Amino acid sequence: MSRRGSARENGAPMASTRKALFEAVPNISEGRRPEVVAEIVGAIKSSGGATVLDVSSDPDHNRSVLTLAGDADALLAASLALFEAALGRIDLRTHKGEHPRMGAVDVLPFVPVRGATMADATALARRAGEAAAERFGVPIYLYAESATSEARRLLPDIRKGEFEGFAEKILRPEWKPDFGPAKVHASAGVTAVGARPFLIAYNINLGTNDLTIAEKIGKAIRASSGGYRFVQARGIPLEGRGIVQVSMNLLDFRKTPIFRVFETVRSEAERYGVSIVGSEIVGLVPQDALLAAAEHYLRIEGFSDQLVFESRLDAAL
Amino acid sequence: MSRRGSARENGAPMASTRKALFEAVPNISEGRRPEVVAEIVGAIKSSGGATVLDVSSDPDHNRSVLTLAGDADALLAASLALFEAALGRIDLRTHKGEHPRMGAVDVLPFVPVRGATMADATALARRAGEAAAERFGVPIYLYAESATSEARRLLPDIRKGEFEGFAEKILRPEWKPDFGPAKVHASAGVTAVGARPFLIAYNINLGTNDLTIAEKIGKAIRASSGGYRFVQARGIPLEGRGIVQVSMNLLDFRKTPIFRVFETVRSEAERYGVSIVGSEIVGLVPQDALLAAAEHYLRIEGFSDQLVFESRLDAAL
Repeated sequence: MSRRGSARENGAPMASTRKALFEAVPNISEGRRPEVVAEIVGAIKSSGGATVLDVSSDPDHNRSVLTLAGDADALLAASLALFEAALGRIDLRTHKGEHPRMGAVDVLPFVPVRGATMADATALARRAGEAAAERFGVPIYLYAESATSEARRLLPDIRKGEFEGFAEKILRPEWKPDFGPAKVHASAGVTAVGARPFLIAYNINLGTNDLTIAEKIGKAIRASSGGYRFVQARGIPLEGRGIVQVSMNLLDFRKTPIFRVFETVRSEAERYGVSIVGSEIVGLVPQDALLAAAEHYLRIEGFSDQLVFESRLDAAL
Repeated sequence: MSRRGSARENGAPMASTRKALFEAVPNISEGRRPEVVAEIVGAIKSSGGATVLDVSSDPDHNRSVLTLAGDADALLAASLALFEAALGRIDLRTHKGEHPRMGAVDVLPFVPVRGATMADATALARRAGEAAAERFGVPIYLYAESATSEARRLLPDIRKGEFEGFAEKILRPEWKPDFGPAKVHASAGVTAVGARPFLIAYNINLGTNDLTIAEKIGKAIRASSGGYRFVQARGIPLEGRGIVQVSMNLLDFRKTPIFRVFETVRSEAERYGVSIVGSEIVGLVPQDALLAAAEHYLRIEGFSDQLVFESRLDAAL
């Protein structure tokens, strides 16, 4: 009740640095041979401290998305193990699939999750890209937040022409790789490596079956039509439930937080006499994004994650 | 944006059990000799996997409160190391202090923080109490949620008479210890061991200097005058800021959640035309208590902490 009574106010100093935690989401050009994907995942698991949170293969795309977590050193080791395992097993010259691709390891983004900045993630992307280029001779393009020019920020711009077109594209001065030779790896192509914010897939369900309301709200909040800078949104029907949904990607939850998007959707919906019946997180959400909502709604003064038992424990370990 | 696009929807199964995390908050009857406290803390640190989050000594009380975290096995080992170190260094026959006490290790509560139930904490309290009684011959009383009778639920009832009175009290049939001999340990007295919920010290600041409003709201929400079952509350002035505060202990945040208390305080304050200007957490708060607030305000459907990146990582490790 009082500060006087707290057992934790005057204690020993805590570790002042939090352990940096990153996500890596490599996309590899193999989605039809489960045994090959399993071997690559096994190589990552054997590489050290990285944890494989998820593996999702799509046979039509002939592509798999891996979700890894760990500190910078662990993800660097995992990245090199990934390249080595993929290069021995994936040959782009015989690869076919619906999804555009340019490399055996097609794209390798690093995401700061906790206790790490975008600059930290960029440094990690540069280390991983440089090491992969040196060790395996794969040309590396830095993209997203770690891009070395605006022309290389967006993945589709880099990937245009795909594996088959890169033999010519890589010779153009403006497409000289950031690391590695200006020559496509014969079987493994080229790879985009970069840093980007955590992407949260978040949907808000409205108490109406009127799709035009969800569409109007989507338009109001998305960046492309004047809404929040880091929001993509559209209205979709939820057939089974007879209601509609504002379906969103939150591209940078630190700059456009969940609670602000939620409150704007609520305000816009109210204008039509419609209420929010619920929301859903698809995939995973960083703890910080939810703690920020608690801090906002509870109006907590001087909030820090060091007030959270588990975070304090993590910092003390 | 769509479930189709999520990388994590169809992945490998996750570990289905979360790692059980407990807090232990031993109170020892030594707060004047820092070197003795340091030796006892050192013994705990050497005992295995428990982490010492905080040590707070009060010379007037001649008492120290330790905050430990870990799984059941780690806290069991830490408890035995604590008893051994304390028994060799603390003699109640010569101990003086303002705070009532009955043992060298006076009270040892175990608190479920995450992935553990009150039944788990009670099982841990029984294991620790039984082992300490067997190994060191200290009589143990189970209290709080693990009490074996209503008469032993409240610590003041057990502690009444203190060390000096226990030689006689322990002989009464109704005060036969739960574990160990019906004979006070010559130097270490007796110990209360138990399980209790996490206590959150939470204060809400009001935009007024009228203390009577904070007092009325405190009365409205606290259990003793008809409010929430697990809330203690009172109104106090915040001298420096010229405002008043509703100062609270939330004794069981799973049954009386923070957000509900906050909303009731808001509603009661509005009746006086007063707004909430902020709130504060004193000490530590379990992650689950804040995630519950985020879930509530964002109306998240099907919420589970396995949607949280860090929790998923913890479960996968």
